[in-house]
Amino acid sequence: MNKLIECVPNISEGRRPEVVAECVSAVASVEGVKVLHFTSDYDHNRTVITFVGEPEKVIESAVRLCKKASELIDLRIHSGEHPRMGAVDVCPFIPVKNVSQEEIVEYAKLAGKRIWEEAGVPVYLYEKAASAPHRVNLADVRKGQFEGLGEKTSLPEWQPDFGTSFHPSAGITIVGAREFLIAFNIELDTDDVEIAKKIAKTIRFSSGGYPCVKALGLMLHKTNTAQVSINFTDYKVTSLHTVVDKVREEAKKYGTTVKCTELIGLSPMKALIQSAAHYLEIKYFDYEKQVFENHLI
Amino acid sequence: MNKLIECVPNISEGRRPEVVAECVSAVASVEGVKVLHFTSDYDHNRTVITFVGEPEKVIESAVRLCKKASELIDLRIHSGEHPRMGAVDVCPFIPVKNVSQEEIVEYAKLAGKRIWEEAGVPVYLYEKAASAPHRVNLADVRKGQFEGLGEKTSLPEWQPDFGTSFHPSAGITIVGAREFLIAFNIELDTDDVEIAKKIAKTIRFSSGGYPCVKALGLMLHKTNTAQVSINFTDYKVTSLHTVVDKVREEAKKYGTTVKCTELIGLSPMKALIQSAAHYLEIKYFDYEKQVFENHLI
Repeated sequence: MNKLIECVPNISEGRRPEVVAECVSAVASVEGVKVLHFTSDYDHNRTVITFVGEPEKVIESAVRLCKKASELIDLRIHSGEHPRMGAVDVCPFIPVKNVSQEEIVEYAKLAGKRIWEEAGVPVYLYEKAASAPHRVNLADVRKGQFEGLGEKTSLPEWQPDFGTSFHPSAGITIVGAREFLIAFNIELDTDDVEIAKKIAKTIRFSSGGYPCVKALGLMLHKTNTAQVSINFTDYKVTSLHTVVDKVREEAKKYGTTVKCTELIGLSPMKALIQSAAHYLEIKYFDYEKQVFENHLI
Repeated sequence: MNKLIECVPNISEGRRPEVVAECVSAVASVEGVKVLHFTSDYDHNRTVITFVGEPEKVIESAVRLCKKASELIDLRIHSGEHPRMGAVDVCPFIPVKNVSQEEIVEYAKLAGKRIWEEAGVPVYLYEKAASAPHRVNLADVRKGQFEGLGEKTSLPEWQPDFGTSFHPSAGITIVGAREFLIAFNIELDTDDVEIAKKIAKTIRFSSGGYPCVKALGLMLHKTNTAQVSINFTDYKVTSLHTVVDKVREEAKKYGTTVKCTELIGLSPMKALIQSAAHYLEIKYFDYEKQVFENHLI
């Protein structure tokens, strides 16, 4: 069975298209790796590249990207609104097909080791690949940014996982393993943002709700609609329908209803199909075997 | 955008594994064509082969299969429980990706023409590719079977669409275009089969229900449960959730409920995802762009 993974590196360049093009070309130079998407932001001075392929090939692409980015991007003269620590700032690996949690962590570590050995850029591991609890959260790892690396890497608890100190111009690359992130909004049939905030608090993990769910209540001023804005960080742990049904139930308590929902960007088919199987009440459903497209990918 | 189609020929051989192997090899001999599955039935003396690929390649595989089958299978000495008319008996083409209804019909016709010209086997076109209303239904086209071909092809209304008369040992191949067929059962929380029969009558097209829906009410004696057994012949016309919701509503009228449902065999992901989008109330959902796997196939 062929294994597939995705890699979504963020590089610290969003203003010089020729540099972005060279970086994307470095990724695409590995045969069998497919660049699905890349998007640059001028204000952030940052580009996100999305690519997929077999694990070994995707790792090779990530290493080539780090080499190229460390040649072309100099963080000593970089500015942008988004916090950053490396020329390739973060480099998460995500399982797509026939890859377990343990395997994706191993791939992230292998990539990290090679980025240090072959591109000469030290590496912190984060999220599922983190080597210690204080390194799980990306914001904690990136705290102090590029400019603070001298001080940070002098602390015993912040030694890189691969390499020592930091690259003088390319900083440190933060490599990790995570699940596919699904951004999903639920609009309520009310203009009372307090209801959206209360519902968000009920469902999000940080205030006692569902694991792998982040949520905020906010106001859509254009349409005067209260919205619960949600991130599913692991749809295999908490599914879309679990949260949608809970929001419907909570909305009813506050005398309102769910008006509609919105999927932002991409979702893996499995996240949607598990909801279909739930609502259609399909028993003994074998996702891998019974979904036709699983035989094509 | 790459186009993908599926082909599901049924060949009149299910007892000689070496013949089946040669036929499957003929299909697989075209580079880029992927044989997903094949299954032989001894009693039927018949094998179903499922393969996918780009249209031109799939057509080439179908032609090679017809050549090989007409060399190895002699219907004059063939017997089996399943009705049959040709060495390759039926050969339907099904759109998978980026292929319209009009295109799949054209591919079926092109395949039919080539099967006559290159394998020397005359062809009837059926279903969406049929050249006349009386040729749409497979059972009508196959009526009289191989043994009746002399008489059938002497009638003006049953001249083959490609070729004349019939191949002495390989008969006629029935080539067509259709949608993916989804077999889906709904179990009711009752042992009264009459309720299942009444609901089946309400939903099936032939008695005034939904287009592209066939349904029967029957009894599962093992569990003493009444079941509505459904075929969706085009889920793009009538979707799973439309019928499931209607059956729930009807069941309630008869004082019962839907206990569970069952998907038999395969479903295209789109059929399930359109139900997920319905139940999750996702607005502005762009299936092609927003489902991650659509970028991989």
